[in-house]
Amino acid sequence: MMLQPILNSLNSKCIVLASTSPRRKLLLENIGLKFKVIPSKFEENLSKESFCSPLDYVAETAKQKTLDVVHRLYSSEVPPPDLIIGADTIVTLGNEIFEKPNSREHAVEVLTRLSGSSHEVITSVVLVTQSPAEPKYSIVQFHSQTEVVMGDLSQRVIEAYVDTGEPMDKAGGYGIQDLGSTLIQRVNGDYFNVIGFPLHLFAKEVLRLFPE
Amino acid sequence: MMLQPILNSLNSKCIVLASTSPRRKLLLENIGLKFKVIPSKFEENLSKESFCSPLDYVAETAKQKTLDVVHRLYSSEVPPPDLIIGADTIVTLGNEIFEKPNSREHAVEVLTRLSGSSHEVITSVVLVTQSPAEPKYSIVQFHSQTEVVMGDLSQRVIEAYVDTGEPMDKAGGYGIQDLGSTLIQRVNGDYFNVIGFPLHLFAKEVLRLFPE
Repeated sequence: MMLQPILNSLNSKCIVLASTSPRRKLLLENIGLKFKVIPSKFEENLSKESFCSPLDYVAETAKQKTLDVVHRLYSSEVPPPDLIIGADTIVTLGNEIFEKPNSREHAVEVLTRLSGSSHEVITSVVLVTQSPAEPKYSIVQFHSQTEVVMGDLSQRVIEAYVDTGEPMDKAGGYGIQDLGSTLIQRVNGDYFNVIGFPLHLFAKEVLRLFPE
Repeated sequence: MMLQPILNSLNSKCIVLASTSPRRKLLLENIGLKFKVIPSKFEENLSKESFCSPLDYVAETAKQKTLDVVHRLYSSEVPPPDLIIGADTIVTLGNEIFEKPNSREHAVEVLTRLSGSSHEVITSVVLVTQSPAEPKYSIVQFHSQTEVVMGDLSQRVIEAYVDTGEPMDKAGGYGIQDLGSTLIQRVNGDYFNVIGFPLHLFAKEVLRLFPE
């Protein structure tokens, strides 16, 4: 794993994940990283229409979610963390953005749209480290985009999948890592980005930020 | 998941996985399939040089591994299983085939070869179902090929990764689903095929074999 040479050193630092996604937490635990989760209180309610592209929207949402945690931790009495990690993930088809379905019918509708075609998953990641200069922290932000080709799903398959309950808390209405695994014909890009966190790019950036 | 509509019906059948790979077992359990594992006794020692291509080699190995279990189960007193699943996975670079590394040095050598470039992972799957005609079973065989682009790994990263022990029981010397996740820049094709089993193609074939 990319961070193996600096893992002991990294795990002696204070690292915060500013995201409540259980899938992001699991991905980062799975590579051996030690961190604590501090949820963002940012309400994810930016107006999609005011952004030029889905990428601009997800990048701003990721930044605002992370900055909420940054502001709280950097204004506290205790020293701020060495690294704060934030992220947001969206599913897009053309310029349309798919978030978590809000009902069973909505999940069926979204999956019917995605079935038999190719869509994009974009995750924007924000890394915040301490800095000597004001505002005492610096921000690195990057994103990863993965093309996902979903198989041609019959209405019967879609309805039965929605009835498992799995689609409800997931952008785009599917979980590629669980029951949804069989629905996906192919991905083109970072697979982990589809789960919600681009591990390779993250590891490269962390190696750059903490070379030793 | 693709098999959801027929999952209850499938799980009332006798299904055998003719593979000891813990990763294949986990992938199939993860989609809710019930089955028992019966290991093949086929020695995986076909001469690579006698095959025209890596695909021919992996297809023949998968077939022989599965047929060993088929012959035992179809010659026993008890009725044979409704479905026997076999598979084999290889990593190839050009016409060269990479199997499990046989030493620490070999693992470092293989990862050094794969670092910073693109290789292919091929899994051949064999499905055996009962048939009225002799030899009383029929075979469906298919394969999936996924391109994997590995990041540019420093010697320090490779050595530290090999020291985790993860590469030793894996074709190509890496595990994309664990610590190795951070090493992979992108995949182009079925991600699960890289772990050792192409779930989408499998589900499509099983739906065709057991429509109800």
